Amino acid sequence: MKIKEIRHLSVPMTGNIANAVVNFSEHTISLVAVFTDQLRNGQAIYGLAFDSIGRFSQGGIIHERMIPRLLQTDPESLLNEDGSFDCSRVLRCLMRNEKPGGHGDRAAAAAALELAFWDINAKLRNEPAYQTIARAFGCEPARTGMPVYAAGGYYYPQDGVGRLKDELKHYVDLGYSAFKMKIGGTSLTEDMARIEAALAVAGNGSNLAVDANGRFNLQEATAYAKAISPLNLRWYEEIGDPLDFDLNRRIAEIYDGPVATGENLFSFVDARNLVRYGGMRRNRDIFQMDPGLSYGLTEFARILTMLEENGYGKPFIYPHGGHLINLHIVTALGLGGCEAYPGVFQPFGGYSTECRVADAKIHPGDSAGFGLEAKAELVPHIRKILEGYG
Amino acid sequence: MKIKEIRHLSVPMTGNIANAVVNFSEHTISLVAVFTDQLRNGQAIYGLAFDSIGRFSQGGIIHERMIPRLLQTDPESLLNEDGSFDCSRVLRCLMRNEKPGGHGDRAAAAAALELAFWDINAKLRNEPAYQTIARAFGCEPARTGMPVYAAGGYYYPQDGVGRLKDELKHYVDLGYSAFKMKIGGTSLTEDMARIEAALAVAGNGSNLAVDANGRFNLQEATAYAKAISPLNLRWYEEIGDPLDFDLNRRIAEIYDGPVATGENLFSFVDARNLVRYGGMRRNRDIFQMDPGLSYGLTEFARILTMLEENGYGKPFIYPHGGHLINLHIVTALGLGGCEAYPGVFQPFGGYSTECRVADAKIHPGDSAGFGLEAKAELVPHIRKILEGYG
Repeated sequence: MKIKEIRHLSVPMTGNIANAVVNFSEHTISLVAVFTDQLRNGQAIYGLAFDSIGRFSQGGIIHERMIPRLLQTDPESLLNEDGSFDCSRVLRCLMRNEKPGGHGDRAAAAAALELAFWDINAKLRNEPAYQTIARAFGCEPARTGMPVYAAGGYYYPQDGVGRLKDELKHYVDLGYSAFKMKIGGTSLTEDMARIEAALAVAGNGSNLAVDANGRFNLQEATAYAKAISPLNLRWYEEIGDPLDFDLNRRIAEIYDGPVATGENLFSFVDARNLVRYGGMRRNRDIFQMDPGLSYGLTEFARILTMLEENGYGKPFIYPHGGHLINLHIVTALGLGGCEAYPGVFQPFGGYSTECRVADAKIHPGDSAGFGLEAKAELVPHIRKILEGYG
Repeated sequence: MKIKEIRHLSVPMTGNIANAVVNFSEHTISLVAVFTDQLRNGQAIYGLAFDSIGRFSQGGIIHERMIPRLLQTDPESLLNEDGSFDCSRVLRCLMRNEKPGGHGDRAAAAAALELAFWDINAKLRNEPAYQTIARAFGCEPARTGMPVYAAGGYYYPQDGVGRLKDELKHYVDLGYSAFKMKIGGTSLTEDMARIEAALAVAGNGSNLAVDANGRFNLQEATAYAKAISPLNLRWYEEIGDPLDFDLNRRIAEIYDGPVATGENLFSFVDARNLVRYGGMRRNRDIFQMDPGLSYGLTEFARILTMLEENGYGKPFIYPHGGHLINLHIVTALGLGGCEAYPGVFQPFGGYSTECRVADAKIHPGDSAGFGLEAKAELVPHIRKILEGYG
């Protein structure tokens, strides 16, 4: 098998979404296509993937660093014995002449490309990616659907808690029964009123997580921990700076409910530091590392192994990034579940009509690969990146 | 003062340099120019800077994320009362809508731009940057020159230790009396022979540091620590993965000589984790964070303050990156010293003919700003980036 061409398309995110820290309206996502010389029905088999939400403009790194390395490499050296791609070798090739440390934007750039090779492997077998991934890692894919929750709960400065309740009610109409909302963008008093309003829709605390997006210092984190403690919330997410492991540990010591973090840790070594220093509690706290921001599935699988070796179980892993690629990964590896951002972070966020949401669970579809081609919002961009090929 | 235009030029590094991990021949450096509406002798005052050595292809991030934010901002909001740029505000503007964590390539992208504003501030006063920087941080710039050592000590597979000794003798001829060499690219036995050969030139261990470029696991790190311990070397650098703070701590517990690390930590929070978990010993171990890879001087100064608050003194800080920008910073802030890579990492590495190396010390020149215009190897690239302006 040969790699004939690799393309990258920078796709802007639509909508005007802001969390406590970031306005996403300037963000883009890197869509990549890797074309092989293998044919099916006269069409070249290609791999399609993207990095995840939250880091952007990786086109320079992809074009100048990553693609040339792949194209300069003997493709035979990247293959398994069965002729599929060995994605760990692909990643090693992508990272040639990169220094250790500094796991930021390049981790997303490498991930987009590494994931495209998983899409190729699945398309070579004409099966959904979750089957390919489960086989590669010796897992039994989840047959009964994966738990999914609706993340949102934004700030509406004009409309107050009424609009927040309407937002969550809309998620109920879509089939969701668990939710996540933003905190930390206003005062504790106002946030508590917002949480109470959200609870009126969610029913009880176990259906409602809160997300500070890394905003709090220790004092703020402690004040919120004390205030929300009686509510028995689903989890308290990204409380302080994602690399302030000490803050996480201190909150875990005083807060009985689950804490969740990890979406802004992009490597095995960073995740291991969270385990070493973050005070994460077994069978309680939630890990949220995202393959699409962390060098792809190869590195993510190393992280999973490390977590399991340290006694942290798969049901406590909920990757950041509510989209098709992570749905396949979560299903394949039997992780805790995934998130959904209904209606926002388009065209990448959310799932396709192939995917069924019912009883707070979601199933990936049966299309070959990650099934991105079946997601209507992505179709124009996929058409553009494939244009004129073959 | 207004910002009229911002330019970026990706400049390839010449030479074919490899350390134990990385071949730098595909690396580039981002040269940036920020043009103001201020005139001197009819010429627009501009700021010129670059990120440092080791991370590359930041053009995408600079063009798509950083430059638009600067140009969309009211420049008055970036100024100090005296009309110069407040570089901490510049950095805040550069980082608008960036998520926390993930301190990698964007830290270098932001640094190149932030440092250009220091060059502007110095040129507004028509003084060398070290004076401007010293004033900004309430320091007394070093008048007697800064300690400098020659980093190199490469592997020469064909020519063995003879060529290594020749390399170090060449540095002696250039005025250097302290050196750093690579280890970890071969066996311990061969490396010990190389170190012995280098010591024959260096005179004694206090003139010779060794650098593993983050390559060792704990077992290898321990074996080398035991083997080199009797040699009383200057320091043992970047022993394991830069984020494996636990490995660093364990080696610091068994190795009496100084350890050095930090060149691949790109943020305040990462550096604080080194302090919290890395077992760094006061008045012994060496910190090597590099402003050009770490969001620029604003963030680097925060790191310095944190180090001092934790009892780590300025004489133990030797930033990575042997070039003019760091020479000005080291001189201004009275740090331990800086490195030089004589002849390599051109056109950015090393100093200009204005800078005198004598008695193992180096002085910055008297040109306004960082004096990049006085470095012959940079002149063609500077001419190119300035071409056609004003």
